Amino acid sequence: METPTPSRLKSARKAAGLTQQQLGMALGMEPNTASARMNQYEKGKHAPDFLTMKRIAKELDVPVAYFYCEEDKLSKLLLILNKLDEKQLKQVENFLFSLQK
Amino acid sequence: METPTPSRLKSARKAAGLTQQQLGMALGMEPNTASARMNQYEKGKHAPDFLTMKRIAKELDVPVAYFYCEEDKLSKLLLILNKLDEKQLKQVENFLFSLQK
Repeated sequence: METPTPSRLKSARKAAGLTQQQLGMALGMEPNTASARMNQYEKGKHAPDFLTMKRIAKELDVPVAYFYCEEDKLSKLLLILNKLDEKQLKQVENFLFSLQK
Repeated sequence: METPTPSRLKSARKAAGLTQQQLGMALGMEPNTASARMNQYEKGKHAPDFLTMKRIAKELDVPVAYFYCEEDKLSKLLLILNKLDEKQLKQVENFLFSLQK
């Protein structure tokens, strides 16, 4: 497992309740190749570039960094943090600083 | 600004108090090309592959996802989270869940 992207992509797609075909087509891929191309990404056979991952991140409503996050714990927290508003993020920052004292 | 990697790399390097030359050589680059190559990365002229970013992340003691994190707030929190131990990460997770209620 060279990069975390294939497994992160698969779990984010599933969490969004989309098939490979549906996600591929949402990204503008041709119907007859969408599923195969997404499968290549999820099998690590082809590494999408950053811009493609950004479009996928937007489609699946996750931060693009999630796809490059090796640490499972951090990746889980990233998904939750991404859902918080400015005020809540400030509260998290204060909480983290309090932990470090 | 296509990807966040150039600016994240520069700030992580500076936070670690290393010059481009020092970081390049720590990665095994030749002394006479280390600085120029690192400068290309920081100027976005050349995009290092994920494995190179993983080695850089290890050298600078940051999570590799930091280099791919577009959101400044999230990237800042990622750096702090990366310094926490298992117990503290669990406390953070509980705190995040409490925020979402």
